[in-house]
Amino acid sequence: MPDDDPMSGTPVGSPSAQPDSLRDVRAVVFDTFGTVVDWRSSLIEQFEAFGRERGIPADWTGLVDAWRGGYEASKDKVRSGAVPWTNLDDLHRETLDGLIERFGIEGLDEADRHWLNRGWHRLNGWPDAVAGLTRLKRCYIIGPLSNGNVALLVNMAKHAGLPWDMIFSTELFRRYKPHPDTYLGVGRLLGLEPRHVMLAAAHNYDLRAAQDLGLRTAFIPRPREYGPLQRTDFEPEGDWDLIAHNLNHLAEQLGT
Amino acid sequence: MPDDDPMSGTPVGSPSAQPDSLRDVRAVVFDTFGTVVDWRSSLIEQFEAFGRERGIPADWTGLVDAWRGGYEASKDKVRSGAVPWTNLDDLHRETLDGLIERFGIEGLDEADRHWLNRGWHRLNGWPDAVAGLTRLKRCYIIGPLSNGNVALLVNMAKHAGLPWDMIFSTELFRRYKPHPDTYLGVGRLLGLEPRHVMLAAAHNYDLRAAQDLGLRTAFIPRPREYGPLQRTDFEPEGDWDLIAHNLNHLAEQLGT
Repeated sequence: MPDDDPMSGTPVGSPSAQPDSLRDVRAVVFDTFGTVVDWRSSLIEQFEAFGRERGIPADWTGLVDAWRGGYEASKDKVRSGAVPWTNLDDLHRETLDGLIERFGIEGLDEADRHWLNRGWHRLNGWPDAVAGLTRLKRCYIIGPLSNGNVALLVNMAKHAGLPWDMIFSTELFRRYKPHPDTYLGVGRLLGLEPRHVMLAAAHNYDLRAAQDLGLRTAFIPRPREYGPLQRTDFEPEGDWDLIAHNLNHLAEQLGT
Repeated sequence: MPDDDPMSGTPVGSPSAQPDSLRDVRAVVFDTFGTVVDWRSSLIEQFEAFGRERGIPADWTGLVDAWRGGYEASKDKVRSGAVPWTNLDDLHRETLDGLIERFGIEGLDEADRHWLNRGWHRLNGWPDAVAGLTRLKRCYIIGPLSNGNVALLVNMAKHAGLPWDMIFSTELFRRYKPHPDTYLGVGRLLGLEPRHVMLAAAHNYDLRAAQDLGLRTAFIPRPREYGPLQRTDFEPEGDWDLIAHNLNHLAEQLGT
């Protein structure tokens, strides 16, 4: 009888590279902002170029850092039920409008604000992202498991060349990570048990939530994600299944 | 100000190929069974090989035709609310179990039945599918808009090499086509108006439902989809925006 599955998950060539507990992994999903794409450098570069071109001087680096600094608080309003489901583009926009005023940036019309907000759709991958994902895609189902909305993640994939099989935006579940529905939702949609799904992330909190639900975990530290503001996630803080320097190293350890 | 959008939808090189009404199309989604993949030949070939290898003689062609023949009736049970949401793998399995009995096929254990049911995950594209989609992907967001469940469509894409940007399974909306939520759901998830989304399909009923909701439409006749049993959809039965011989011809008409 032919093999049921177009992918094996236990690839030929380096069987010894994979711990036994990872033999059953069929899908690898990725935290995206920070783990796969370098949001901070990408946004600062875009906005500084915009400021120069348009003659709008501003502390664009400060704005980007403050924008990301407001990320958890804006999602918490949704998580707590204080506001109904709101996708990340809309949360981003609300925060951005406040920051434009706070930073005293003048001369931005509606089209400019829309373009700045869509900066999150135009993020660049870390240098290892495309090569590592391309290797992993040979033997695994790959996708982002990200709080970014579908439009954001689809546009980002086209911009950065990320070869996802499926976009697992948490928008599909109308819950933000770390709600259990998000991690378990991947397996439900793929017809897989939690142990068949691995989360790869640069953030310990994300891996902890996934591991508690039975998913496999890979930690990929990105110590420059927050630039000089980085305070956490330099080291693994849990018993993660794999630790990888980057996505190529993850592909290697998963035998691809 | 740099362009907002990583894709233009109005590609350079053949502006005259595109009618004005299609200038705003940003995403092209595809009916999949019959339009992109040749389900009938793929299943018959798989099952006849299986029967020979296992020494299980059966009217495999008859089973495949009867299986597809029960497709609308099984979805109608969900559409009418007679049964709660059930995905296509599960509907397929229920129909298959009945047909195995009806066709008097002996000697199939649970693993065999699972493998037969997953035949729908292993369908081959029509000869033009991969090339046409690859061309379209350069300038448009592409995805299936199919009643197949996510697992089925993801595995099929890996098997057949279909380079989707996103999998718009109707499972995401927990409704089967032609429910309006499925056609409108694509634009909602992509942040696009209905007129920015085109449905390409080999079936007039599907295009009619999409057009009624404001989507653009492309008819791609597949006169051999049902083999000798084909009775409908040889010709366009509506005022569709485009008519294409195959997916390469569609890509050409959309200027890619």
